[in-house]
Amino acid sequence: MEMALGAAEIAARRGEVPVGAIIVDTKSGRIVANCGNQMVGRNDPTAHAEMLALRAAGNMLGSQRLVDCDLYVTLEPCPMCAAAISLARIRRLYFGAYDSKGGGVEHGARIFEQASCHHRPEIYGGLLESRSAALLKNFFETRR
Amino acid sequence: MEMALGAAEIAARRGEVPVGAIIVDTKSGRIVANCGNQMVGRNDPTAHAEMLALRAAGNMLGSQRLVDCDLYVTLEPCPMCAAAISLARIRRLYFGAYDSKGGGVEHGARIFEQASCHHRPEIYGGLLESRSAALLKNFFETRR
Repeated sequence: MEMALGAAEIAARRGEVPVGAIIVDTKSGRIVANCGNQMVGRNDPTAHAEMLALRAAGNMLGSQRLVDCDLYVTLEPCPMCAAAISLARIRRLYFGAYDSKGGGVEHGARIFEQASCHHRPEIYGGLLESRSAALLKNFFETRR
Repeated sequence: MEMALGAAEIAARRGEVPVGAIIVDTKSGRIVANCGNQMVGRNDPTAHAEMLALRAAGNMLGSQRLVDCDLYVTLEPCPMCAAAISLARIRRLYFGAYDSKGGGVEHGARIFEQASCHHRPEIYGGLLESRSAALLKNFFETRR
């Protein structure tokens, strides 16, 4: 989670909303993805930290199914990312700050609670919550 | 929509679930993305036709917001793709076959009906529905 915060801080320095994501392959113990948001830099509305991490991990491990992988992200995933996490069969999802407006795990579409959701990871929210939230708050305050 | 079906047919020949997506920039009248599914080929759980098309169009137009763009896809988008379409501010969504199991527009998470959804495109479902569905049915039958 500290590493995910680091990725978020790097994203902020690039002018991106500071969210960072890490994927760990629990079989090997290796970190297979370390990404921050890149929507602005890539002109890509899908380039959320989690999406980039899922793509990097799939590429690294040679599979679109990441069954032995855990994902750590500093903010509650949005519906797009939550649905992608389900498609990728992530084992455990750890996230930092809750997102009452944009979140899709504990809020809004509550992707993993849908009857049609094929895979629900174990979910742990609120890790290093205040630091993850402070990073976002500071970013938006300095931009006003 | 015919072009989207063509992209789906090409995907099937690559061994991918046959779904195709096209994005048209209505300002210039140009097609800015023409993509089929690539989850298998790219080892990428996020590589649905719509996601690849949104990324390609953002790259082509130099913006993550595709406000003047319409997206045509042969199958009802899943929750991941529907949420991405909202993030990208797509103007109109045209889709072919309805997907009662995996869809996220008229089924399941019904992404655009969530109070927290910031942008809802105009939606037109059922275009060339039977041909889009037949392509998927044939694909899965020959794989059994």
